[in-house]
Amino acid sequence: MSVIPESNVDVLIVGAGPAGLMMATWMAKCGINARIVDKRGTKIFNGQADGLQCRTLEILDSLGFGHRAWREANHMLEICLWNPDENGIIRRSDRIPDTIPGISRFQQVVLHQGRIERFFLDSIAEASDIRVERGVMPSSLKIDESAVEDDAAYPITVTLRHLSEEEATPKQSSTSANGQSVQDGLFRSNLAKDDTQDLLDAAKINAKANSEEVIHAKYMIGADGAHSWTRNQIGLKLEGDSTDYIWGVLDIVPITDFPDIRMRCAIHSADCGSIMVIPRENKLVRLYIQLTTTSKNGDNSGRADRSKINPQMILESAQRILAPYKITYRKLDWWTAYQIGQRVGTSFSVHERVFLAGDAVHTHSPKAGQGMNVSMQDSFNLGWKIASVVKGHAHRSILKTYQSERRRIAQDLIAFDHKFSRLFSGRPAKDVMDAEGISMEEFKAAFEKGNMFASGIAVNYGASAIVAKEGSSEEQGDGTDVSVANAKHRVISDQSLCSGITVGMRIPSHKVLSQADARPWHLHEVLPSNGRWRVIVFAGNTNDDRQRDKLGKLSEVFSAPNSFLNLYTPKGARYDEVFEVLLVHKAPRQSVTVLDFPEVFRPYDEVDGWDYNKIFVDEVSYHEGFGDIYGALGIPQDGCIVIVRPDQYVSYVGSMEEPAAVNSFFAGFMKEQHAKDEAPTNGTKV
Amino acid sequence: MSVIPESNVDVLIVGAGPAGLMMATWMAKCGINARIVDKRGTKIFNGQADGLQCRTLEILDSLGFGHRAWREANHMLEICLWNPDENGIIRRSDRIPDTIPGISRFQQVVLHQGRIERFFLDSIAEASDIRVERGVMPSSLKIDESAVEDDAAYPITVTLRHLSEEEATPKQSSTSANGQSVQDGLFRSNLAKDDTQDLLDAAKINAKANSEEVIHAKYMIGADGAHSWTRNQIGLKLEGDSTDYIWGVLDIVPITDFPDIRMRCAIHSADCGSIMVIPRENKLVRLYIQLTTTSKNGDNSGRADRSKINPQMILESAQRILAPYKITYRKLDWWTAYQIGQRVGTSFSVHERVFLAGDAVHTHSPKAGQGMNVSMQDSFNLGWKIASVVKGHAHRSILKTYQSERRRIAQDLIAFDHKFSRLFSGRPAKDVMDAEGISMEEFKAAFEKGNMFASGIAVNYGASAIVAKEGSSEEQGDGTDVSVANAKHRVISDQSLCSGITVGMRIPSHKVLSQADARPWHLHEVLPSNGRWRVIVFAGNTNDDRQRDKLGKLSEVFSAPNSFLNLYTPKGARYDEVFEVLLVHKAPRQSVTVLDFPEVFRPYDEVDGWDYNKIFVDEVSYHEGFGDIYGALGIPQDGCIVIVRPDQYVSYVGSMEEPAAVNSFFAGFMKEQHAKDEAPTNGTKV
Ligand SMILES: Cc1cc2nc3c(=O)[nH]c(=O)nc-3n(C[C@H](O)[C@H](O)[C@H](O)COP(=O)(O)OP(=O)(O)OC[C@H]3O[C@@H](n4cnc5c(N)ncnc54)[C@H](O)[C@@H]3O)c2cc1C
Ligand SMILES: Cc1cc2nc3c(=O)[nH]c(=O)nc-3n(C[C@H](O)[C@H](O)[C@H](O)COP(=O)(O)OP(=O)(O)OC[C@H]3O[C@@H](n4cnc5c(N)ncnc54)[C@H](O)[C@@H]3O)c2cc1C
Repeated sequence: MSVIPESNVDVLIVGAGPAGLMMATWMAKCGINARIVDKRGTKIFNGQADGLQCRTLEILDSLGFGHRAWREANHMLEICLWNPDENGIIRRSDRIPDTIPGISRFQQVVLHQGRIERFFLDSIAEASDIRVERGVMPSSLKIDESAVEDDAAYPITVTLRHLSEEEATPKQSSTSANGQSVQDGLFRSNLAKDDTQDLLDAAKINAKANSEEVIHAKYMIGADGAHSWTRNQIGLKLEGDSTDYIWGVLDIVPITDFPDIRMRCAIHSADCGSIMVIPRENKLVRLYIQLTTTSKNGDNSGRADRSKINPQMILESAQRILAPYKITYRKLDWWTAYQIGQRVGTSFSVHERVFLAGDAVHTHSPKAGQGMNVSMQDSFNLGWKIASVVKGHAHRSILKTYQSERRRIAQDLIAFDHKFSRLFSGRPAKDVMDAEGISMEEFKAAFEKGNMFASGIAVNYGASAIVAKEGSSEEQGDGTDVSVANAKHRVISDQSLCSGITVGMRIPSHKVLSQADARPWHLHEVLPSNGRWRVIVFAGNTNDDRQRDKLGKLSEVFSAPNSFLNLYTPKGARYDEVFEVLLVHKAPRQSVTVLDFPEVFRPYDEVDGWDYNKIFVDEVSYHEGFGDIYGALGIPQDGCIVIVRPDQYVSYVGSMEEPAAVNSFFAGFMKEQHAKDEAPTNGTKV
Repeated sequence: MSVIPESNVDVLIVGAGPAGLMMATWMAKCGINARIVDKRGTKIFNGQADGLQCRTLEILDSLGFGHRAWREANHMLEICLWNPDENGIIRRSDRIPDTIPGISRFQQVVLHQGRIERFFLDSIAEASDIRVERGVMPSSLKIDESAVEDDAAYPITVTLRHLSEEEATPKQSSTSANGQSVQDGLFRSNLAKDDTQDLLDAAKINAKANSEEVIHAKYMIGADGAHSWTRNQIGLKLEGDSTDYIWGVLDIVPITDFPDIRMRCAIHSADCGSIMVIPRENKLVRLYIQLTTTSKNGDNSGRADRSKINPQMILESAQRILAPYKITYRKLDWWTAYQIGQRVGTSFSVHERVFLAGDAVHTHSPKAGQGMNVSMQDSFNLGWKIASVVKGHAHRSILKTYQSERRRIAQDLIAFDHKFSRLFSGRPAKDVMDAEGISMEEFKAAFEKGNMFASGIAVNYGASAIVAKEGSSEEQGDGTDVSVANAKHRVISDQSLCSGITVGMRIPSHKVLSQADARPWHLHEVLPSNGRWRVIVFAGNTNDDRQRDKLGKLSEVFSAPNSFLNLYTPKGARYDEVFEVLLVHKAPRQSVTVLDFPEVFRPYDEVDGWDYNKIFVDEVSYHEGFGDIYGALGIPQDGCIVIVRPDQYVSYVGSMEEPAAVNSFFAGFMKEQHAKDEAPTNGTKV
C-alpha cells in the first residue's frame, strides 16, 4: 500500500461557487497560502443567479473587475408593476426606479453566474498561484479542539478525494426542448436529490492510492452550497420554514407583444399566478413563473413532483398569466424549477476555525436576486479577517465578528424574503373587502422598501472590537459577544461629527481629485480590496493656520515610534503593507503641491521616490464635475479622522484633535510587530 | 526544386504596428479574408508612442476596447508651463487643462504602445481567424495594371519570405544601464540604419523552398513604418524637411523634488534647452529632453552621432534643464533618441489598389503625441471603405476618398508639428527686444490652439461622394477629385438645420435613453464600428400629430421596395447588415412603447423577435443625468435625418420631409443588390 500524501495549508476552501471564489480571491490578493476544491469537474456555463446588487458591484470593483460585470451585464433601470384591472385584465399600474437614485455609483444589473465566476477565476489567477482544483472533494474532517486557540497550529485535518472525470461530471444536466438539448439547473436544484454521497461512494470504489490526500489546515471554509457537506460534518443545522410555492424559471429569447419585456416587471394576474420578468444580456429574458397558486407540499418530502415539470409546461403557465399578451420563444438557454424555504444556520462556525458561508448557511427564494450577492458578501466579510490573522497582524478574536455581522444579515434576508415571497405569490385582492387577497398597494410599498434592502447598501454592522460605536455588541449583532478584548482600549466614535458617514456602514463614495495630477477618482477607487486598513484624514482647508497646525500634530502622533503605523507594521515591510494613511483636504488645489504636506501622507521609497497617490483634494474637476465630498458626507470645517476596514466598512469617526484614539482603536485587536523603539527606517531622500 | 505555394487573399496588410493592426481589426470586424505580416518576430513590449487622443479613444471604444485603454492609462488632466523668471530660474508660469473640457467624453491619456497593440491583437483574435504572421516579409511586389478596375481580379502579386526566428529578432535592442540591461528604441529610431535590406539578404542566404510563398491580393496596405518597403516598391516619395533638433527620451521612475512631476509639463530653461514631462502608468514618467540647443546636421547623412548618446548623458541634460530642482532615477524602463523631420507622401496609393498608411506616408516629431494616433486613424478611415468594396456593397470610386481625406490631415499635422517643434526647441526670449528667442506668450497660445488639433476632434473631411456638402471636393480635400460619380445623384446637406452636427466631422456624442428599457447610452456606444452605415432619424416629439405624420411617411419611403434599405442590402442578409436605421425621439418616454413606432425602427426576426435596440429618447435618466442631445446638437423641433458613416463621420444632414434624399445619397456609390421588385421578406409576426 502506498503512502497517502500529507501537506499543510493555511486556508482550505470547499466549494467554488460565488462564496468560495470570493474567499479565494481575498486569499490571492492577500498572498495567503490557500487551496480551493470543488466536487464538480467544470464551472457552470449558464443559468443560476443573475442579479448583482449595487453593493456587490462596488465590491467587485474593489477587487478590480467590477467594470467587466458592468460592461457585459444588462442594466435594469425601471420596475413596471402590472396588475389586473376591474375587468381582470393585466395593466401597467406603476413604475419605480429599479435602484434608488443616489445610493451608489452603480445600479443593479443582471449577468449570469457563469460569467461572474469567470471574472473571479481570472482575478485569482492574476494575483496568485491558487487554482480551483476541480473534481476534488473532502471525505473526512477532524478538528483538534485542544489546538484551536494556538495561532501556529493546523488543528483541522481533512482527507481529500480526487474524482475521475466521469465522476465529476454532473448527471441530468440537460433536457430536450424544441429538438435541441438545453442545459437545465435541476441537478443543482433542491427539487433534485443531492448527489454528494453518490459521488463519494463511487469514488471509493474506484479509489487508487493517489486519489486521496490528507491536508492539515489552519482555517477551513465550507462554501459548498445548500446541501453543505461541511455543515453536516460539523453538526450545524439550518432553522426555518421548509416549504414555498413552486416556481419555474425560463431563460429565453422571447417573441412577444408584451410591451415591457425589456423592463423588470412584477406581474400579478387575477387568477393564474404571478411572473417576474428579468431582462438579461444578449436578448435573453428570465421569467420566474409561478407554477402553483397555493403553497404545495406534494409528497412526504415536501417536494413537488419533478417529472411533471418541463419547459413547455412552464411556458404554458406564463402564457396564461400574461394573457391577453402573447409570448413564445425559439431559443431556450436554460431552465429550472424550485421550491425553496427560508432557513438560516444557528451558528456560522465552530471554534472560529471552520466557517460556513453562502447557501451553506442560508437559503431562500431566488426572486429577490439576493442569493449570490449575500453569499459573496459573507466571504467578503470573512476573507480579510482570516488573512490578517494568518499573517499575524491581528488577534484571532476578530474572527468572532464574522458570525455577529453576517448572521444578522442572513436573518434580515430571510425575513425580507419571507414577506416578499408571500406578497408576490399571493392572489391580488379583488377589492378592499377581499381579505385573503394581497393588496397591490401593500405590494408596491414592500417593493420600494425592499429595494433599499436589496441594494446591499443598507448593511450596518453592530458594535464590536472593529466597529467602534456606542451600544452593546451583543444587542447590535446576532447575540455573539464581540466586544473589545481589552476594556482599556474601548474607543467610541463621535458619530455626530459627520452626518454622511455611519459607523458600521460602508463609507459612501464621491469623487475627489488627486493632488499630484488633478485626476478625479471615486473615493472607493482608492480603497481597493487588498487587505489594508485605511486611516483617512479629512483635514479641511489646510491653508488655514488652525487646520495646518492640527494636521502637523496629528502627523507627529502618526509618525511616532509607538504609533499604530510603527507598532503594527511588520519590520521590513513596505510602509503601507498594513495601513494606508490618506489625506483629503479642502485647500485650493493650485495653491499647494504634494510636497507641502507631512511626509506620513507621501511616504518615501528609495527606488520609487515619493508616493504621489495618497493626497486628495475636494475640488471641481475639469471634466467630471464636482464630487463635493465634504458637503455630501457632512464633514465639518474642523475636519475629522475616519478609519475604514479593508472591506470599506467604517470602523471609527473621530476628531482630528484626538489622533491618539487611532492608536487605541488598533491596540484593541492588532498584534505588536516589534519593540517600540525599533521603528521602521526610511531611505535617504533626494 | 519544390513548388512555391500560391494563394489568393482579399486584403494583404504589411506591418503590424498601430496602422496595420487597425486595418486588420476592420477586416476582422467586417469578416474580410485578410492576412497581416510583420518582419519582426515579436511585438514591442515597452517604449514607443504613448499618447492617446480623445478621438482615438472614441475610435478604440467603437471597436470594443476603449475601456481597456482608459482603465490602464494614466490620465493627464493639466499642463503646467514652466519658464525662466527674471533671474533665469524656472517657475511655473501657467496651467492649462490638458483636454479642452466638453469636446469628447474621453480625455487624452497615456499608455505605452505595446499595451495598445495587445488590445488590437485580442480584438482581432476575438472577431476572426486573422493572426499576425510574424517573421514574414514581402520580397517582391507586382501590380497588373490592366486589371485594377476589375472588381473580381487579384491584380497584386506579392512574394512573401518567412524568416527564421533569429533573423526576425531585432539586433541592438538593449543597452546596459545601472548594471541592468534596458530595452531601447534605437533599432527603430531614425538614428539607426534601417535593417530591411539586411534581413532580406540574410533570408535569401538561408532560403529554403518552403520559406517563400506567393500571394495574389485584391488590395494591399503598406503599414510598414517610416522606412516603408512598400512605399519604395511603388515608387512613392515623402516630401518635406529632413532635419530637426536632437531629442532624447527617458522612461523612468523619477526620484525628484520637482513638484509637478505627475503633470504634463513643458519646461523651457533659460539656456539649457527644453523638457517635456509626460507622466505615465505605473509610476513611470517619460521625459523628452532636448540634447542640442541648435538644429544639428552632424555628418553628411544629417544624422547625429549615435555612439555618444546614452541614458546617462540624456539624464545629465535633464538635470541641467531642471535645475535648481533635482532629478535622478533607479528604474529605467526604456530610452531612445531621435532626430526627425516633417514629411508627407505625395500620393497615398497607386491605382487605389496598394495604399500606404501611418508612418509610411508621414513622419514628424513624437512630442505632440500624434504619430500613433494619426497612423491608426489613417487605416480607420480606409478599412471600412475597402471592406465595403470587397464585399460588393460599394463602388471602388469611394476608395479615392482615402487620399483626399487623409492626405490633408497629414499636411495639417506636418504644419502643426513644424510650428510646435520650433517653439518648443527654441530658447525663450529674454524680453520683448530679444527677437531670436521664443515668446512664451506665443508658445502658450500655440499650445492652447494645438490642443484642439491634437485632440483629433477637429478633423473635418471635405466634400465627396460620401460627404454630402457644399463646395468643390478638390478644394476641400488635398486636390484629389472625389466628387460623386454620377451627377444626377448629387445630394447636398442642409447644414443650417442643426448647429451642432457638422457634415464631414464625427457626430458628437451625448446620452440618450433606450426606449425599451430606459438605459442611458452615449450615442457613440450605439454606433460601434462594424461596417454599418447609420441613418439616424431625430423625429422630435412624435406625440405631436405633425411629427408623427412625417415619421409615418418617412418610414414608408424607407420601407419601399426601391428604398436604399431594400436596394443595397444583399438578399438573405440580416435586415441591418448594411444599414442601421435608428430613431431618437423626444416624446415623453413613459407615454409610448417601442411597439408604437414604425416597424422600420424595430425590425422583426423569426428567431429573435422584435429588435429592441434601435429606438431612443432624449430624456433625463434616473442615475446619469440628462444628455439633452436635441439641445446640445441644436436639433430643430421639426427633427432631421442624419447619415453617419461606418467611421462615425457625418455624411449628410437633411429634413425629415425629404426622406428620398437618403436614397439619392446612397445611389451615388452603392451597388444594387437585386432587382427592385424582390425586396427582402420579413418573417411572420406574433
Ligand atoms: C437551481 C438554482 C437556481 C438559482 N437561481 C437563482 C437566481 O435566479 N438568482 C439568484 O440570485 N440566485 C439563484 N440561486 C441562488 C444562487 O445561485 C446561490 O445563492 C449562490 O450560487 C450561492 O453561492 P454559494 O457559493 O454559497 O453556493 P453554490 O453556488 O451552490 O456553490 C457551491 C459549490 O460547492 C460545490 N460543492 C458542493 N458540495 C461539495 C463538496 N462536498 N465538496 C466539494 N465541493 C462541493 C458545488 O459543486 C458548487 O460549485 C439559484 C440556486 C440554485 C441551486
Ligand atoms: C523610436 C521611436 C520612438 C517613438 N516615440 C513616440 C512617442 O513617444 N509618441 C508618439 O506618439 N509616437 C512616437 N513614435 C511614433 C509612433 O510610434 C509611430 O507614429 C507609430 O508607431 C506609427 O505606426 P505605424 O503602424 O505607421 O508604423 P510602425 O509602428 O513603425 O509599425 C510598422 C511595422 O511594420 C513592420 N515592418 C516594417 N517594414 C516591414 C517589411 N518590409 N515587411 C514586414 N513588416 C515590416 C515593423 O516591424 C513594424 O512592426 C515613435 C517612433 C519611433 C520609431
